[in-house]
Amino acid sequence: MNELDLIAKLTRSLPSNKSVVVGAGDDCAVLDLGLGDKRLLFKTDAVVEGIHFDSTTSPKKIGRKALARCLSDIAAMGGTPTAALITLALPRDFDVAFVEKIYEGMNELASENGVAIAGGETTTNPERILISISLIGTVAKDKCILRSGARVGDAIFVTGELGGSLPQKHLEFEPRLEEGRWLAENFSIHSMIDISDGLAGDLRHLLQPGNLGAELLASAIPVSRAARLQARAESSAKPALLAALTDGEDFELLFTIASRSAVPLIDGWKKRFPKLRLSCIGKILGKPGLLIRDEHGVRSFNAHGYVHFA
Amino acid sequence: MNELDLIAKLTRSLPSNKSVVVGAGDDCAVLDLGLGDKRLLFKTDAVVEGIHFDSTTSPKKIGRKALARCLSDIAAMGGTPTAALITLALPRDFDVAFVEKIYEGMNELASENGVAIAGGETTTNPERILISISLIGTVAKDKCILRSGARVGDAIFVTGELGGSLPQKHLEFEPRLEEGRWLAENFSIHSMIDISDGLAGDLRHLLQPGNLGAELLASAIPVSRAARLQARAESSAKPALLAALTDGEDFELLFTIASRSAVPLIDGWKKRFPKLRLSCIGKILGKPGLLIRDEHGVRSFNAHGYVHFA
Repeated sequence: MNELDLIAKLTRSLPSNKSVVVGAGDDCAVLDLGLGDKRLLFKTDAVVEGIHFDSTTSPKKIGRKALARCLSDIAAMGGTPTAALITLALPRDFDVAFVEKIYEGMNELASENGVAIAGGETTTNPERILISISLIGTVAKDKCILRSGARVGDAIFVTGELGGSLPQKHLEFEPRLEEGRWLAENFSIHSMIDISDGLAGDLRHLLQPGNLGAELLASAIPVSRAARLQARAESSAKPALLAALTDGEDFELLFTIASRSAVPLIDGWKKRFPKLRLSCIGKILGKPGLLIRDEHGVRSFNAHGYVHFA
Repeated sequence: MNELDLIAKLTRSLPSNKSVVVGAGDDCAVLDLGLGDKRLLFKTDAVVEGIHFDSTTSPKKIGRKALARCLSDIAAMGGTPTAALITLALPRDFDVAFVEKIYEGMNELASENGVAIAGGETTTNPERILISISLIGTVAKDKCILRSGARVGDAIFVTGELGGSLPQKHLEFEPRLEEGRWLAENFSIHSMIDISDGLAGDLRHLLQPGNLGAELLASAIPVSRAARLQARAESSAKPALLAALTDGEDFELLFTIASRSAVPLIDGWKKRFPKLRLSCIGKILGKPGLLIRDEHGVRSFNAHGYVHFA
């Protein structure tokens, strides 16, 4: 059983209460705790040695990435992060300096983003380091952007460049917090997600519960330089476009907006974020499936993004 | 380096912001998010296979305990839990039915306490199951009880019975949520903690930053039947009193209150919680150290509670 099937099984009938606006299945849980015009965002995310990093990875970057992944999920709701708790599960013979460096990386990124680290705990995991971060944030009640909400005819946008993130970018990416907030505040964004499992895989989350599809224009997909170089360097490597569609760990924002708003959005973006690429890569269709249009015509894309436990 | 030393090192200079009322070092973090007269409680806690449970433990009880530990921390602040996120790190060949039972145990306890399970995530931990739970709750601004706050002359109280919890109670304990709230609402409790590492070890947290001490009356400490039976059954077992002082995993509430309030508290408690023992076990002293008074006189108690990584 893979991760997605397991999650589907476990989340079928979870206990709820009146605080829950959005439960399992979005980038963050959304809770109404009577915060006036704000809602609480609540997220947890873990990285594991040997899976998400290894013992040769810079510990500062491990810590940075662990927190950055959570911040990226807050960004994908249009929210602002507030405070994190850190769970550190360590082998008994852990290296104190290594653990301190992990914290250094987390602390730096937290400070840059005004996030408090309000505590946490340490426990034992004999074989490997596991870092689980729990994060809360807030979002204006009427500006919270969910994964659901895409409409037929929406233009599909993505920030930055995709693919080839594994050698470097996945450890150094900037969570798109400012961009997510700006989008939420200035435009009617219909749906949004951050890309962790690959463009193709995460786009499917915006097409749920299954009645929508998407058509992407191959030439519009912002393939990263890293993906192009990798494709050129190794004959066994994925073609660069496939890397952009499936590599994952990009942590860019993927969102949909009414097509009539596409031009004002692009104009506004260029003024506000002149250094960060924004690409309109396709449109939402009224029937299921993911289509890729290139110079040869339209093809169906069946490969999935990265699936854990596969 | 043991757990407490590591935590002290890592928490020396954590990034903070204006939302943080209480950061690392209490049962929960306390945050001010502008929730009117309420504050947010934020807690994370993990259990690990081979450390906190093993593969022969009932999976329902594993799930129940994982959540109950967090609820106990909310109880120790006088708070009410709202919503949890579940991080499940699993070996690749995990048993789906076992994982479902873990969730069943969590879900049941969550439902009993009006707590929502608002999502979470699954990841891979190849050698063993690790469950990390993140919980938020709320507490009235002026009713939040911290670990700090004990005063010289305070009476020390504990709920329930202590020691010998390892064979059974640690998997089945009731988090003292109603009791914690009732104490916070009806009395001026100076300091409170839940006992996870043993009475002697956790009492020391109420004596921080180090200028206070405590004297306990040996005959007043509520030694559990399980601890007495264990002491009798095995000649190598701890004496029952020592078990009550150091076994840990009791998850009872330990708190201090002005001595003049002791009698009204006991009277009120008997009416409100007639089935749960409440014991006045000693008093707070003005100089550091933990003293035990018994029929032979007063002795200093130097053993620590359970320390991870020891």
